[in-house]
Amino acid sequence: MKLLQDRIRQDGQVLTETVLKVDTFLNHQVDPMLTMEIGKAFAQKAESAGVTKVLTIEASGIHFAMATAFTLGVPFLYAKKKKAVTLTEDLYTTEVFSFTRQESFQVSVSKRYLNAEDRVLIVDDFLATGDALLGLVEIVRQAGATLVGVGAVVEKSFQDGRAKLEAAGVEIHSLARIRSMSPETGVTFIEETLTENEEALV
Amino acid sequence: MKLLQDRIRQDGQVLTETVLKVDTFLNHQVDPMLTMEIGKAFAQKAESAGVTKVLTIEASGIHFAMATAFTLGVPFLYAKKKKAVTLTEDLYTTEVFSFTRQESFQVSVSKRYLNAEDRVLIVDDFLATGDALLGLVEIVRQAGATLVGVGAVVEKSFQDGRAKLEAAGVEIHSLARIRSMSPETGVTFIEETLTENEEALV
Repeated sequence: MKLLQDRIRQDGQVLTETVLKVDTFLNHQVDPMLTMEIGKAFAQKAESAGVTKVLTIEASGIHFAMATAFTLGVPFLYAKKKKAVTLTEDLYTTEVFSFTRQESFQVSVSKRYLNAEDRVLIVDDFLATGDALLGLVEIVRQAGATLVGVGAVVEKSFQDGRAKLEAAGVEIHSLARIRSMSPETGVTFIEETLTENEEALV
Repeated sequence: MKLLQDRIRQDGQVLTETVLKVDTFLNHQVDPMLTMEIGKAFAQKAESAGVTKVLTIEASGIHFAMATAFTLGVPFLYAKKKKAVTLTEDLYTTEVFSFTRQESFQVSVSKRYLNAEDRVLIVDDFLATGDALLGLVEIVRQAGATLVGVGAVVEKSFQDGRAKLEAAGVEIHSLARIRSMSPETGVTFIEETLTENEEALV
């Protein structure tokens, strides 16, 4: 998504070779027009898949889920993060390790809102280690629902999240795939125009 | 806002005389169409106020801020909640007591995104004790910005949040003002059509 890649080049701050700050426009201060375009891009990719629910995780995925679900005309659902959840029969729940915070947390979704009839599109802001997204995939699996795919706004392709998700059989659609980055040279993207073969060689 | 009040009557669950669950359509599973209408209502109320930023707090205010800011065509900003924040020169920060969780947390916003030139509209899902909203008001004050007003999706008028905000000189616009509720009789709203005099008598 060129609009997004240009914005990352312009307003993203590459702090280290693994840390990109996008809190000017994506996850603290947010550009709602760009967010709506991101939602449209996710929705367009999934439009023939019969999505019944968009699923994300609080907090930084919520506005992207809102934009995607608004475009598709279906409800969205945000999983809640807790340090510890008292297990109840009412919740799908799974444990996720946060690489950033170096601690585990519980992710949960009410059983009332996800069942075997649902066709779920998961969206989130970042795909890096993939752990939060794998937690959401696990919740979809617990519900017996059909996972249509995962949409990530920004993918750090140099981390192993994509490989983990693909090993779990998940279809991934990332709008800005970062091949590498550094404070000196900025961000290099895997271009959308590459063929699958070319991407495999990257 | 009749659409919202009807939906609360239909899908809200009154658990006790103070606890209303709206997680079917507002704050776990979310109806994005209703959310967009809520955003339009907040935006319409503030359209002549020259709003430059919409401010909310993670997580359950984010989609309402998205809808409001999208309609107004300005950025939104979501304050982050932390158990404890290491004070830095880069953050506006204040402490908020959560009545629901019976514990305090820190609310913070980067100084990069709010300054004396800004005209801020605060929005959030609930106005009850008002503590979270007062925290956001304090952050606007620290920034030296102008507070245009506060928009609450649901107001529990039987709690003291409105009185606290009005004492701080804040203009409040709530879309569904609950006068009282109980599991037996459901929700009673303060009707929008009441005059100020009539409301004062309620």
